[in-house]
Amino acid sequence: MFQRLALIGCGLMGGSFALALREAGLIHTIVGFSASEKTRQRAVELKVIDQACNSVAEAVQGADLVLLAVPVGAMHISFAAMRDVLQPNTLLMDVGSTKCDVIAAAQATLGERLNCFVPAHPIAGKEVAGIEHAEASLYKERRTILTPLPTTGIHRLQAAHDVWTAIGSHVSTLTPEAHDATFAAVSHLPHMLAFAAVNAITAQPQGAAFLDMAGPGFRDFSRIAASDASVWRDILSANHAEVLTQVAHFRASLDQFETALKSGDTAALQHLIQQASDTRSAWSLLADNACNQASEDK
Amino acid sequence: MFQRLALIGCGLMGGSFALALREAGLIHTIVGFSASEKTRQRAVELKVIDQACNSVAEAVQGADLVLLAVPVGAMHISFAAMRDVLQPNTLLMDVGSTKCDVIAAAQATLGERLNCFVPAHPIAGKEVAGIEHAEASLYKERRTILTPLPTTGIHRLQAAHDVWTAIGSHVSTLTPEAHDATFAAVSHLPHMLAFAAVNAITAQPQGAAFLDMAGPGFRDFSRIAASDASVWRDILSANHAEVLTQVAHFRASLDQFETALKSGDTAALQHLIQQASDTRSAWSLLADNACNQASEDK
Repeated sequence: MFQRLALIGCGLMGGSFALALREAGLIHTIVGFSASEKTRQRAVELKVIDQACNSVAEAVQGADLVLLAVPVGAMHISFAAMRDVLQPNTLLMDVGSTKCDVIAAAQATLGERLNCFVPAHPIAGKEVAGIEHAEASLYKERRTILTPLPTTGIHRLQAAHDVWTAIGSHVSTLTPEAHDATFAAVSHLPHMLAFAAVNAITAQPQGAAFLDMAGPGFRDFSRIAASDASVWRDILSANHAEVLTQVAHFRASLDQFETALKSGDTAALQHLIQQASDTRSAWSLLADNACNQASEDK
Repeated sequence: MFQRLALIGCGLMGGSFALALREAGLIHTIVGFSASEKTRQRAVELKVIDQACNSVAEAVQGADLVLLAVPVGAMHISFAAMRDVLQPNTLLMDVGSTKCDVIAAAQATLGERLNCFVPAHPIAGKEVAGIEHAEASLYKERRTILTPLPTTGIHRLQAAHDVWTAIGSHVSTLTPEAHDATFAAVSHLPHMLAFAAVNAITAQPQGAAFLDMAGPGFRDFSRIAASDASVWRDILSANHAEVLTQVAHFRASLDQFETALKSGDTAALQHLIQQASDTRSAWSLLADNACNQASEDK
């Protein structure tokens, strides 16, 4: 149970966290700051936050729980703005999709309050952004990755674990480096491929006619291409080294398909597809062992 | 209303067509042939067909409606097997995902029965194959493309139109060439990209650990990678020229992202993402005007 949550960034991710905490009965007061005054007011109107604050420092003042839910490019300035008002026992978490850069920003700015910080990445979202789309169930049955620092105390880590578990999320722990390599492969590159595939169609004179005929396969494949441009600019930029490594792996894989198609080698083509199909058919969103693991953790 | 439907290929697509026709009260008797005897028996057990036949010719004999729902690589042999028993007034349709190659096979084999044939491609499916997954609603609110030949009579085309409309599908007409270019862009290439992306992950030593952490974005993006390998080997092979053209467009688009990432040009990166995001956000599965069009057709 926390007394005061300071929500820095009142969007889909932050708003959903606030709603989930309230639903779980874990919070007394929720205050929020957003760079846009309109967004702050909307968050109050939608009863996601109790009170809008005019600055990061005003929001964080007196908070025992702080959630930093801004685009990863805005993390540095937010850390700097809260440093002097963070209480020693406050639990500070982010929800950034990259971790090494957020940690570097925290290390460069937070000083002795660095031990308040437990970097977090809930693997959830929607292709639509904004507080209007926030919902208490966003993190339910979704995974949340924590990437603790060497300085993170075990009690702080446990508190972070407990908060995410209480709102229905399955918590895993990774090093920041393993996190960024993993999500370059399974999230950042897929987003970039979906963006590139949509642009490749619209760049053609018949692009609009092509899109008009697209079916449910295209709908699902390209859903993530509707994601917010500022958010994904920041994610891809922050993790560009790992993303470029994954692009190279992808190009090598695509080359195999192209070679098989060009040479008419249908056996090789079938083998390549079978490999992908077997892998994807065996995969599911939260593997059973992961769920069991999470239950045991709890 | 038809008397006897001959279903050639008792899988997801054919089985769903049979169930939909029955539900719409449009058919008296359904007979079926499948290369696998086990599948034929399963189709009878599941009451998708009334009677299993031992050959294409036996099934087509006396049928006034024939649906050819086999992988596109098996179309040629199926046309050849039915040629001598097709009645002059029978409506023959396929459900192949490529059209130029299926039409070439029909032209090479059907002789004067070519005028029975209305090439069709319902834009529906699942990532799982097989008669067990067939359902009467598969084609509801989905688009079906007809690609008539110069020899296709207007009455035959109308009959084809009426059948698909009666089971809830929205019918559009394209030339076979436009069809194959369109679906290379919005279906065949996306499948190949999803296959290649999954293989690129599993080719890495940490691939399994990466996949274990993947979230809902990956789930939707990669859903089509679980598709049937034989079916997609045939589709990609049959339409390889158009698919290779689309790969080239895609690579050019991906190059732009890679260049922006490598040079740290965040403005260019944001612009590229914004373009994709705007396009995908404005897109929906069946555009309103298409639905209106379909209603007017009806």
